[in-house]
Amino acid sequence: MKYDVIGLGNAIVDVLSQADDAFLIQEGLTKGSMALIDAGQATALYAKMGPGKEVSGGSVANSCAGVASLGGKAAYVGRVASDQLGEVFAHDIRAAGVTFAARPSGHADPPTARCLILITPDAQRTMSTYLGACVELTPDDIDPAEFAAAEVTYLEGYLWDPPKAKDAMLKAAQAAKVAGRRVALTLSDPFCVDRHRASFFELIDAHVDLLFANEEEAKSLTQSTNFEDAARLLQGRAKVVVITRSAQGSVILSGGEQIQVPAAPVAKVVDTTGAGDLFAAGYLFGYAHGRPATECARVGALAAAEVIGHFGARPEVPLTTLL
Amino acid sequence: MKYDVIGLGNAIVDVLSQADDAFLIQEGLTKGSMALIDAGQATALYAKMGPGKEVSGGSVANSCAGVASLGGKAAYVGRVASDQLGEVFAHDIRAAGVTFAARPSGHADPPTARCLILITPDAQRTMSTYLGACVELTPDDIDPAEFAAAEVTYLEGYLWDPPKAKDAMLKAAQAAKVAGRRVALTLSDPFCVDRHRASFFELIDAHVDLLFANEEEAKSLTQSTNFEDAARLLQGRAKVVVITRSAQGSVILSGGEQIQVPAAPVAKVVDTTGAGDLFAAGYLFGYAHGRPATECARVGALAAAEVIGHFGARPEVPLTTLL
Repeated sequence: MKYDVIGLGNAIVDVLSQADDAFLIQEGLTKGSMALIDAGQATALYAKMGPGKEVSGGSVANSCAGVASLGGKAAYVGRVASDQLGEVFAHDIRAAGVTFAARPSGHADPPTARCLILITPDAQRTMSTYLGACVELTPDDIDPAEFAAAEVTYLEGYLWDPPKAKDAMLKAAQAAKVAGRRVALTLSDPFCVDRHRASFFELIDAHVDLLFANEEEAKSLTQSTNFEDAARLLQGRAKVVVITRSAQGSVILSGGEQIQVPAAPVAKVVDTTGAGDLFAAGYLFGYAHGRPATECARVGALAAAEVIGHFGARPEVPLTTLL
Repeated sequence: MKYDVIGLGNAIVDVLSQADDAFLIQEGLTKGSMALIDAGQATALYAKMGPGKEVSGGSVANSCAGVASLGGKAAYVGRVASDQLGEVFAHDIRAAGVTFAARPSGHADPPTARCLILITPDAQRTMSTYLGACVELTPDDIDPAEFAAAEVTYLEGYLWDPPKAKDAMLKAAQAAKVAGRRVALTLSDPFCVDRHRASFFELIDAHVDLLFANEEEAKSLTQSTNFEDAARLLQGRAKVVVITRSAQGSVILSGGEQIQVPAAPVAKVVDTTGAGDLFAAGYLFGYAHGRPATECARVGALAAAEVIGHFGARPEVPLTTLL
């Protein structure tokens, strides 16, 4: 197979900065969540933020970088603008070993998307995303042959936000399914789930074999107030449902069973940005290679542990060294 | 006084990436040094480098950020382009608390300067700088009133490289001197010194009260093969000469005396980028406030110790917490 995993997502450059809780309150930001902001809000928030570090991000892009770091064959599809941050994004994902057939927009406005990430002393990240060039993702960006050539197509829930991306996502999922491949989806964010609940269920029921959610996203999708109800309602909704629970590890729902896998130990949690993305990377790497679910989750836990030990959402050491 | 320190330098965004020694050899790079590269070389090297982190840099700009982090009043003058990296540079230095009267070039070509920094496992940094918009710095960028309003004017040896910057530097030094202020200079780099030895001496003899050099730069300027000769030849060349010697601390040459000040302890050296810049920040902060030389060097040592404990050349914690 040409690829183990091909990802489709919002191509974003992260701007990481440290902030205290008072700043989040002052700016009306909800700790730990992702909020969409427009260009004006992005400019205003950036002006008030502390000094930043720019690093390539994007949830599924981070996962693809993780798959490559684990020694897997990964490809990524996402839209950037013809600007400096677009060049940074394209450079970094390729340098991470991921195939990225960039089709920059050909213009600098709207610019490459950025996610302003405020990291509080408790290592939580609070994200404000300006989608920029991501709104230009359309079904034309999907080459069905590429999706047919990957064991797993991995889709980002965040893609429901830009207007035409949903059609691109459906085209990708259909291309994968027609070729007999598997489709995975991450719910991305509880508020994103809340904005698009019905169509999430539609996509899951029609195409998704493997569903990733964290506890909050699982509760949001199922409109449950506790984990047990959410798990019960999601059991069987896709062939495999994996719910991540931070330090409590992950729970795999499959074939009517519920399997718990512990988190991997971390010396010091510095920045939780990318924890879910890298868990998914490890899981997908195993899944693409037909490994048992518990092994997939263990690789995911190791990859997540590496990324939360430093600033930024992509691995700093080759993840093959952790296996 | 309006400012403790006003800096003049090449305004640069650093692109930090990890590399092994084999990569440096393959690319013909000299470990620990700074080489100037053109736009084509920058594109070629970037394409071969691993994933990067973009952080604002520039030697004197880092020092100004350090002065502000120590609670001092700092201003900075340097040229950026009207592009995304120029916005990043301007944002970061202002967010660090430094007055930056940006005059972006009004065009995106040449772009904002970048320094491709390869960090090897021994924490050494090897720098390849594309000067971009820095070549547009001219005497018109120097407002004499601003330099008259600072206790210390701090100049960067690297400014000898862009063609018209030397005149800007002379104008700034003269404005400071006419107003009865002090002028400090960093030699920046042994190869830079080698390119411009005679005119370095000219500037030092005419205007410089405080000269910073590391051991290699001091040897290069004096064409000495050992530290003792270099120190002997530099004694009295400026009122105060400070030579930094990495883990061996610093040596102050002043009034015919030679004073040694030890380095501050560091748990783990991660990246030496910015060590000299932050030493200078601490020293300048004390110097602007009329503190004794040994105290200035001790503050410098503390600031340097903070910055080499993490990736990037600007402080990650308020340096006031170290005092």
